[in-house]
Amino acid sequence: MTTRTPLNQLGLSTGKKARLFRILHQHGLRNGTAIFLPYDQGLEHGPRDFFANQAASDPRYIVRLAVEGGFNGIALQIGLAEKFYWDFAGEVPLILKLNGKTEIPTDADALSPLHASVADAVRLGADAVGYTLYVGTPAQEADFEQFRRVRTDAHALGMPLVVWAYPRGSAVEAKGGKDSFYAVDYAARTASELGADVVKVNFPHPEKRTGVATTYDAEFSTQQAVNAVVRSANRTLVLISGGEKAGDDAMLEKARESMEAGATGLIFGRNVWQREHDESLRFVAKLRDILAKYPSGGGQP
Amino acid sequence: MTTRTPLNQLGLSTGKKARLFRILHQHGLRNGTAIFLPYDQGLEHGPRDFFANQAASDPRYIVRLAVEGGFNGIALQIGLAEKFYWDFAGEVPLILKLNGKTEIPTDADALSPLHASVADAVRLGADAVGYTLYVGTPAQEADFEQFRRVRTDAHALGMPLVVWAYPRGSAVEAKGGKDSFYAVDYAARTASELGADVVKVNFPHPEKRTGVATTYDAEFSTQQAVNAVVRSANRTLVLISGGEKAGDDAMLEKARESMEAGATGLIFGRNVWQREHDESLRFVAKLRDILAKYPSGGGQP
Amino acid sequence: MTTRTPLNQLGLSTGKKARLFRILHQHGLRNGTAIFLPYDQGLEHGPRDFFANQAASDPRYIVRLAVEGGFNGIALQIGLAEKFYWDFAGEVPLILKLNGKTEIPTDADALSPLHASVADAVRLGADAVGYTLYVGTPAQEADFEQFRRVRTDAHALGMPLVVWAYPRGSAVEAKGGKDSFYAVDYAARTASELGADVVKVNFPHPEKRTGVATTYDAEFSTQQAVNAVVRSANRTLVLISGGEKAGDDAMLEKARESMEAGATGLIFGRNVWQREHDESLRFVAKLRDILAKYPSGGGQP
Amino acid sequence: MTTRTPLNQLGLSTGKKARLFRILHQHGLRNGTAIFLPYDQGLEHGPRDFFANQAASDPRYIVRLAVEGGFNGIALQIGLAEKFYWDFAGEVPLILKLNGKTEIPTDADALSPLHASVADAVRLGADAVGYTLYVGTPAQEADFEQFRRVRTDAHALGMPLVVWAYPRGSAVEAKGGKDSFYAVDYAARTASELGADVVKVNFPHPEKRTGVATTYDAEFSTQQAVNAVVRSANRTLVLISGGEKAGDDAMLEKARESMEAGATGLIFGRNVWQREHDESLRFVAKLRDILAKYPSGGGQP
Amino acid sequence: MTTRTPLNQLGLSTGKKARLFRILHQHGLRNGTAIFLPYDQGLEHGPRDFFANQAASDPRYIVRLAVEGGFNGIALQIGLAEKFYWDFAGEVPLILKLNGKTEIPTDADALSPLHASVADAVRLGADAVGYTLYVGTPAQEADFEQFRRVRTDAHALGMPLVVWAYPRGSAVEAKGGKDSFYAVDYAARTASELGADVVKVNFPHPEKRTGVATTYDAEFSTQQAVNAVVRSANRTLVLISGGEKAGDDAMLEKARESMEAGATGLIFGRNVWQREHDESLRFVAKLRDILAKYPSGGGQP
Repeated sequence: MTTRTPLNQLGLSTGKKARLFRILHQHGLRNGTAIFLPYDQGLEHGPRDFFANQAASDPRYIVRLAVEGGFNGIALQIGLAEKFYWDFAGEVPLILKLNGKTEIPTDADALSPLHASVADAVRLGADAVGYTLYVGTPAQEADFEQFRRVRTDAHALGMPLVVWAYPRGSAVEAKGGKDSFYAVDYAARTASELGADVVKVNFPHPEKRTGVATTYDAEFSTQQAVNAVVRSANRTLVLISGGEKAGDDAMLEKARESMEAGATGLIFGRNVWQREHDESLRFVAKLRDILAKYPSGGGQP
Repeated sequence: MTTRTPLNQLGLSTGKKARLFRILHQHGLRNGTAIFLPYDQGLEHGPRDFFANQAASDPRYIVRLAVEGGFNGIALQIGLAEKFYWDFAGEVPLILKLNGKTEIPTDADALSPLHASVADAVRLGADAVGYTLYVGTPAQEADFEQFRRVRTDAHALGMPLVVWAYPRGSAVEAKGGKDSFYAVDYAARTASELGADVVKVNFPHPEKRTGVATTYDAEFSTQQAVNAVVRSANRTLVLISGGEKAGDDAMLEKARESMEAGATGLIFGRNVWQREHDESLRFVAKLRDILAKYPSGGGQP
Repeated sequence: MTTRTPLNQLGLSTGKKARLFRILHQHGLRNGTAIFLPYDQGLEHGPRDFFANQAASDPRYIVRLAVEGGFNGIALQIGLAEKFYWDFAGEVPLILKLNGKTEIPTDADALSPLHASVADAVRLGADAVGYTLYVGTPAQEADFEQFRRVRTDAHALGMPLVVWAYPRGSAVEAKGGKDSFYAVDYAARTASELGADVVKVNFPHPEKRTGVATTYDAEFSTQQAVNAVVRSANRTLVLISGGEKAGDDAMLEKARESMEAGATGLIFGRNVWQREHDESLRFVAKLRDILAKYPSGGGQP
Repeated sequence: MTTRTPLNQLGLSTGKKARLFRILHQHGLRNGTAIFLPYDQGLEHGPRDFFANQAASDPRYIVRLAVEGGFNGIALQIGLAEKFYWDFAGEVPLILKLNGKTEIPTDADALSPLHASVADAVRLGADAVGYTLYVGTPAQEADFEQFRRVRTDAHALGMPLVVWAYPRGSAVEAKGGKDSFYAVDYAARTASELGADVVKVNFPHPEKRTGVATTYDAEFSTQQAVNAVVRSANRTLVLISGGEKAGDDAMLEKARESMEAGATGLIFGRNVWQREHDESLRFVAKLRDILAKYPSGGGQP
Repeated sequence: MTTRTPLNQLGLSTGKKARLFRILHQHGLRNGTAIFLPYDQGLEHGPRDFFANQAASDPRYIVRLAVEGGFNGIALQIGLAEKFYWDFAGEVPLILKLNGKTEIPTDADALSPLHASVADAVRLGADAVGYTLYVGTPAQEADFEQFRRVRTDAHALGMPLVVWAYPRGSAVEAKGGKDSFYAVDYAARTASELGADVVKVNFPHPEKRTGVATTYDAEFSTQQAVNAVVRSANRTLVLISGGEKAGDDAMLEKARESMEAGATGLIFGRNVWQREHDESLRFVAKLRDILAKYPSGGGQP
């Protein structure tokens, strides 16, 4: 049993608590954990991600998969949300992703521009909004500025704010890289300091030590690293990202360590929908088995 | 018979559906397909495009040609729309092009600045607005930002949003070029993800493979490529652009493959009005013959 | 007799037509032609332009000269308009110039910043506003953006919009220069496409062919060139600029060719006020003699 | 007796005339001339300017000095105005300086950012606002843009606008430098063209001729130069700045030549408060003696 | 007994005086002095600062420490304030820090972007807001611009404005560095000129003289330097920052010299919470002993 802070002690407004309660206790395993299906890769990476499983190119297939797999939510950009969420509206929570970019130009000065608003999310019946924050980017002034607008709107409308906290940019590359323990730990903390309700981070790599702050230039196990990351996020709920498709055993072990550390759940996209349909569901079932071991209490005091 | 998603399953608001229905079922062939006449080249390329047929320099000539040729719409910039559309107002739908630029400075960091608003389009009785999105440009932050404003206004006013999805900029040049299959496929998807109702793309060139994402570095027929592009656009209607004037047979074959793939129609400018008047109409008649073979149903459930 | 489009077929709103009618038919020769006196050089070039005729340094002298010479309008920046137009208010129409810059820094990325508004023009009783658009500048995004705001305000307030369409910037220099036929023709078209009511251009130089678009790299007479420029402007009225002071015969010949091409009039500053007072008036009389030969009809249908 | 344009012929609004009348005819010598005490150097140069006379570090000392010396106004930044003007409010007019910067970073692209508003000035009972315009800076687009906002607000609130017209930036350095006759003359004109009511310029140096416009590359006396500068400012009142502390005789001669040229007055800071208290007052008395010889009439027609 | 200006002579509005009175006379020693606990390092430096004392990673631990140690206030970013201040709301005053950044990218052009508003501070019951101003940064235009917005809002809402006045950026490094006497003195003055109510500065280092303004290139004791800094701040209350953890005796001596100079108090973070819990409190007790010797009067006239 982990020591996750219960929902009623996170400082949430009524609207945010209502929506997070719906996500965490009225969908998926209904035990306070969560597994999300992100589907923003068509913009972030382009259609190349769908060559492994052409069916996944169709947003309708993906939304149905989120329903079938018992996911706690699906993350979509505005265009797909407007065209495809209606068919399954209410059957699986929607996280409207508010910003994004193509991978074509360099991301040395990465910034993920807004293309939708919290008001769009309310209009579409979403239960959360997502924002990609490129922690450490030389463009952090513009990033923090647009994040502030999103945080303010999310507060005003009682909408939970999920931050994709991604270390990125030329300076990050020079200081250990985007999935070093140092970078991921800093990213989790940054999201918490700036006002995220939920933070999505990559699994930390403590062995990536070249150029990192000296306190991180020591031996840490992955369990120690992910423990620290969850601690840095404090009262911000943590989701661990699956990233690129990888071997099943490695993924499941990461998932287990994450939950052991006190994460609230997982957000796995390509590891799910780059498989054939039934195999996807089998893999999700294994993730759910792990989450079932880490329940947390409901929202009442 | 193609498998185009019918108009009533595209997630359109009432205003957008009313205007798209008018364009697709009350003009042109009235069978759910469309052929548009774009006339923004006077700004994009300058008067040099009119040397091949001086009559085409006169906007009044062009608007009349759109009426005579039975086009589903004509795309104009604000200045010409204000001065010339009144004469034929209502006789052919107007797509007000909201942004544009000259070709004089470099487009390594291409961005097409706004010079008109959705409200201007409403005021002029337009049935759609057009926006050029330079997919992959290093200036994508500014591009997405101004696109978001247009999308929001178009939603508020029920105005269909047609996106000229053009791969452009130094990074695109390094990754296959602006009409590679990779770039066009990504562009179609980006428009869909960001909320286009209709997307205009160039015909994809699968043989341009230098620097493209590895999944595209394989043998594809043009039919396979255009099929993929239409699939990537999912519930966003696809228009295939004519581009520079080329041989008639090649153009007609592209048109046929596009419609076979499920495109909604064509948008041909220079290939039409760089010919002498009657020859223009004869060429358009051939395009209409192709479109007549790919009808789709009306807007009712 | 030229084939200028009459005022009642230009797509003008009521307010714009009322003010242009006043300028073209109630001042000057009252025959639909116009000669304007621009006096923005104190900002654009600094007081150095007044050394040739020190009296011209005094704005009061210039406004009186506009009245004495029977000009159709005088173009002033906000500061001088506020301090000097009151004395002669109503006696000669005011074109309030809304943007401008000093010549001190480089204009490789030329942009002319706004320092007054259309509302200022209304408040001062102006009959038109002027905007310098640097066609082809690398700063065209910012230029088009601020032009859009001006165009929108001018539309809302029924104020005619006169565009100083000046090719400028490093890319223009590499493609024939700022007064090549190619550049001037493109500039006239750009102003028309973006929504100018009147466009001020330099007289085109067809012999400047280095680096121009290939269609312009051929033999053209100056009459052919200026004909094309007026045609590119279509329903936007054309004013030909005098530019730097030059020989009288050359200037008068340019004026004659311009009117023959269908221009509405002339806008001559330094060629007028860099002369001694009476000589100015004699020169203006010669220009008026030319304009008298090219009348056009009034504003009624 | 100079030929300064009287207050009632400057095109001033009622509010601006009321406040300028108060400054020019109800304080100081009450004869239409003015001497101002600027105290923005703590921001512009830092505390280093106070080492010559430590008492001057205390804003209370300075405001009292302005009262004792019979100044027509004191110029302060918002922070000091809020903390120190209350003590002497109404006893000496306040010019609230709206922008400013530190001297630490390079001023090759000089821009003086706004840190207070015209509304702040009204709230504090100021009789004018001050704005530093860096004439010729490569950042002139941003400068003109923020100046426009200030001018518009000053117009709306009837607040006189005093422009510190300072040639500055890399291009100015290459064309004669910041106090060349060419640069100062251009600066005075620019302020007038853009809408200043009062302009503060440095005393022009006609001997600085390297790189200046050719008309300035000739022999001029300082009297000829300052005459020209005042003429370029036309109906904008001129204040001559003292600049760095210099010899008394030289300063007094500059003052005399400035008033002879038709300047309205002087704005002397370091030359006043870098002296010991009583010596300051003695020096001011000499300046007042000069001003007493150049009265101008009141505000009535 | 120092000569600090009493609270009732600082030009404070009612709301600002009420809140500063609460901070200075109703918390801590209640004698007009203050010691603050800053906790923005999780964002500014990342979690690396918590490796010395892991307990300090937990914001709840820190807020409790502020209560236990009798601090006059705790400075938090918006995310932590929303999640952790409720537990101890009202027990210790909150300074909501409105801007901040990560240390990952270079700070050659340092700018600290806003991520919260004065309205957020009001909503959370804060008694002051904090703003980091990077004095001397090449990005000072953007910095002053966002500072102006904060100052205006703080004035409108009666919220005291505490400025972290930090010399920073490439030009500062070339002129003595960020904690030279020259830089710190200039920073204190800048905050005062721009409208800070309270300024937080580093302890000045008069021995750092390379590249400083000539007046600072002389022998000064640290006491002389800190005296000058407090004098430069005039009616802006001064807090001396602890900076990186250092030897106790050195820190206490700095504290004593600062209070002797007329500072209002101290703001010590890492020097406090990088120690074990009870040791923290013992160190704070020593600081309080110093402050007890420098009381100042209450707020009544």
